[in-house]
Amino acid sequence: MKQYIYGKNTVLEALKGDKEIYKLYLLKNAVDNKIIQVCQKRKIDYVITDKNHLYNLVGKVVHQGIVAEVKGYDYTPLSQILSSIPSNKQPLLLMLDGLEDPHNLGAILRTCDAVGVDGVIIGKNRSVGLTPTVAKVSTGAIDYIKVAQVTNLSRTLDDLKKQGFWVVGCDLNESQDYRKVDYNMPLVIVIGSEGFGISRLVKKQCDINVVLPMEGHVTSLNASVATAVILYEVYNSRHPLS
Amino acid sequence: MKQYIYGKNTVLEALKGDKEIYKLYLLKNAVDNKIIQVCQKRKIDYVITDKNHLYNLVGKVVHQGIVAEVKGYDYTPLSQILSSIPSNKQPLLLMLDGLEDPHNLGAILRTCDAVGVDGVIIGKNRSVGLTPTVAKVSTGAIDYIKVAQVTNLSRTLDDLKKQGFWVVGCDLNESQDYRKVDYNMPLVIVIGSEGFGISRLVKKQCDINVVLPMEGHVTSLNASVATAVILYEVYNSRHPLS
Repeated sequence: MKQYIYGKNTVLEALKGDKEIYKLYLLKNAVDNKIIQVCQKRKIDYVITDKNHLYNLVGKVVHQGIVAEVKGYDYTPLSQILSSIPSNKQPLLLMLDGLEDPHNLGAILRTCDAVGVDGVIIGKNRSVGLTPTVAKVSTGAIDYIKVAQVTNLSRTLDDLKKQGFWVVGCDLNESQDYRKVDYNMPLVIVIGSEGFGISRLVKKQCDINVVLPMEGHVTSLNASVATAVILYEVYNSRHPLS
Repeated sequence: MKQYIYGKNTVLEALKGDKEIYKLYLLKNAVDNKIIQVCQKRKIDYVITDKNHLYNLVGKVVHQGIVAEVKGYDYTPLSQILSSIPSNKQPLLLMLDGLEDPHNLGAILRTCDAVGVDGVIIGKNRSVGLTPTVAKVSTGAIDYIKVAQVTNLSRTLDDLKKQGFWVVGCDLNESQDYRKVDYNMPLVIVIGSEGFGISRLVKKQCDINVVLPMEGHVTSLNASVATAVILYEVYNSRHPLS
């Protein structure tokens, strides 16, 4: 499967990684010599072209004059994610239960890369997948963070718990302050959808429920923001300041 | 100045607050009786209408069948923000230096509401302002968080420093881990633009530079995400767990 990715950072990260790139399309007034050099070195075809051509490829998006035709983003089987976690590392997985907004998923992948999340689990239905918009917003993190797509989130959590994982749900009900929890154990952090939070069956699987303190009038944070605050708390509790 | 806001949560928050609402437009197949009751109680005109009409008002956006014509979002003079800070509260301001993405500003306002930021300062030029998209993404936080628009960010910081504020810039260069700083003082947190970080003259005004630890390949976080992680650190250091 082919797909188009666009935007300077996204394409540059793809060029730096080992992603298979079939062809690059560069806008004629905005050609970056550095990119041409990389193309020549990696023997990637490139075409210098005009606005309309780029528009036909990716539509009305902020492509910054650079579009790449790449191998479609692949999902990784969860078993493979689990077996690739180094044995000296405390495992950390993130499950997104019904997340719908590609901007949120892109920003979350970026945070996952920063804090060392081992893999992201999303559902097959009613969830945003690995689209070109997600790739763009992730500024390349999509090339480094493994994402598993599973049919049944609740059953997946059941399996993970049998393998020693603890499940931490971020939810408003019956929850404790997110700073009160010890995150030094194999963890799956569960984040709910933008509109409805964590679904009923998934909530049942949560061992611990945490909530962020909120002082104001609005009742929830943006999903990528809440995810980041929790993930940095996990990171901080695992990497205390010396 | 009039403007249109849309989306269920945004309009509901506007109805709950004291925002001046001139008229409501409701999609005929998606009329919510609760909203009609509020309209009747608050004596707000409403019209039940069709898709095309809503499209003409706000264009191709996810309006969820509800659009309101409201008084345009006003900026608050910085002096007024400062004088409205309760005397028993440690002041906390957020300056956004060249932020361009309305989704980021909306998500940031939501976080500001949650952690008790007293006001947001943005520049008059090259920055996103208070638009309907910002209102929608903020899910109503725009009605509670005061935003000042100033001509010169660097001079504004100079003035604030004379009034006892400390300026904390979030930047990659010559910075210390964000967890090492004592945030228990009157603060302005400065966040740079999505592409270019903090501008040169503003950077010069920063008393302290902090950075978030990042382990991965990608070199920066989404702006609203980074802002939230820092703001929650400030919140946590001011509201330690008992």
